[in-house]
Amino acid sequence: MSISIDIKRAIYEENDTRAQAINASLRARGIFTINILGGPGAGKTSLISRLAERLGGEGFAGEALAVIEGDVASDIDTKFLRELGVEAYQIETGGDCHLNAPMIESILSKMRLKDGSWLLIENIGNLVCPAEYVIGEDLKLVVASVAEGSDKPYKYPFIFAKSAACVLTKIDLAGAVGFDEAYFRAGLAATAPLAPLLPINGRTGEGVDAVLDWLRASRARLSGA
Amino acid sequence: MSISIDIKRAIYEENDTRAQAINASLRARGIFTINILGGPGAGKTSLISRLAERLGGEGFAGEALAVIEGDVASDIDTKFLRELGVEAYQIETGGDCHLNAPMIESILSKMRLKDGSWLLIENIGNLVCPAEYVIGEDLKLVVASVAEGSDKPYKYPFIFAKSAACVLTKIDLAGAVGFDEAYFRAGLAATAPLAPLLPINGRTGEGVDAVLDWLRASRARLSGA
Repeated sequence: MSISIDIKRAIYEENDTRAQAINASLRARGIFTINILGGPGAGKTSLISRLAERLGGEGFAGEALAVIEGDVASDIDTKFLRELGVEAYQIETGGDCHLNAPMIESILSKMRLKDGSWLLIENIGNLVCPAEYVIGEDLKLVVASVAEGSDKPYKYPFIFAKSAACVLTKIDLAGAVGFDEAYFRAGLAATAPLAPLLPINGRTGEGVDAVLDWLRASRARLSGA
Repeated sequence: MSISIDIKRAIYEENDTRAQAINASLRARGIFTINILGGPGAGKTSLISRLAERLGGEGFAGEALAVIEGDVASDIDTKFLRELGVEAYQIETGGDCHLNAPMIESILSKMRLKDGSWLLIENIGNLVCPAEYVIGEDLKLVVASVAEGSDKPYKYPFIFAKSAACVLTKIDLAGAVGFDEAYFRAGLAATAPLAPLLPINGRTGEGVDAVLDWLRASRARLSGA
């Protein structure tokens, strides 16, 4: 009934090989690449727009930014980001539940990407499938909103386990939804012991500076600085 | 790179055949089966618990209820429902991003299910993959929370298109998150023109009676009453 393990393994291996080549090529140009994961409406695009405000757009000294938006359908987020002045490109998968390395290869060939820049890739809104595919990133960031509930790390452990940090969004709603932060933190600690929890309010920008600080520190560690 | 269309088609056909057999067997016993879809933390379990309150548990005249909970990991929701007195059973997929007909066959063989009862199946929290698999249901219900944003029907059209109704949850947060109901309704109308929008507050139970009324009317239509 299910696809055989052998076919799955071959797909993953092929994908991993191509992802490694993408990552090597981007790192050689000093580009820092982040694979941003999260369920539908978790606040991935808001986080990206807040990071873009801080990193600056076109021409910002040394830290130019580009964004790849992955969606099953629509280019709503790309249009939104472009209106903010962000260099954004859309991948529409037409049904596929995750991005993969060939999709990224294909769009990179069409993008204007500066040496030394940041590349933020917003994956499909899905806490399951994107965990299984590397796409050339330096690290994965998982985004979860308090409105999704305190039990997400327990219910979707694989995606949390693969993420270097967890951005907790919509913290202004925590009281209204009865969010249990201690329970969430315990679940995160159990699945991703090294991943910090970075709370933000995407509507006001509260907490985003700390996310950016953490990303900059990670970038420095990755480049051996 | 991607799995060949032929393999995919064979998987779907095999699944569909088995799902039809499940549905025929359940309908022969007068059991009304609902496949409940939605992203992580959309409020599927809250909806189920509120429906369970109204349908009554064990021994309720004529409308006994059983629930199948699908999760990638954990049995948190099954424990929660059992504590409320609901006859609930867990499917843990261990990574699979959707339920399928063989999983339902397997668990049905272990369940105590009464003739004439309701069977609510909570699918994996995922707005993409579960759209592609029938699992023996009479109808699909998609659950989306206002906190996920107003654009979900545009971004995940396939799952909305296959659903007979959309339950809009967490409506008490609509103001706080700036939910644009007209935009959401237009997206739903474009993808699922016949699907009503049924707003609820799972924390208070507001709106759940209307969902139950709609489900009862659908059940009557399906049984030709």
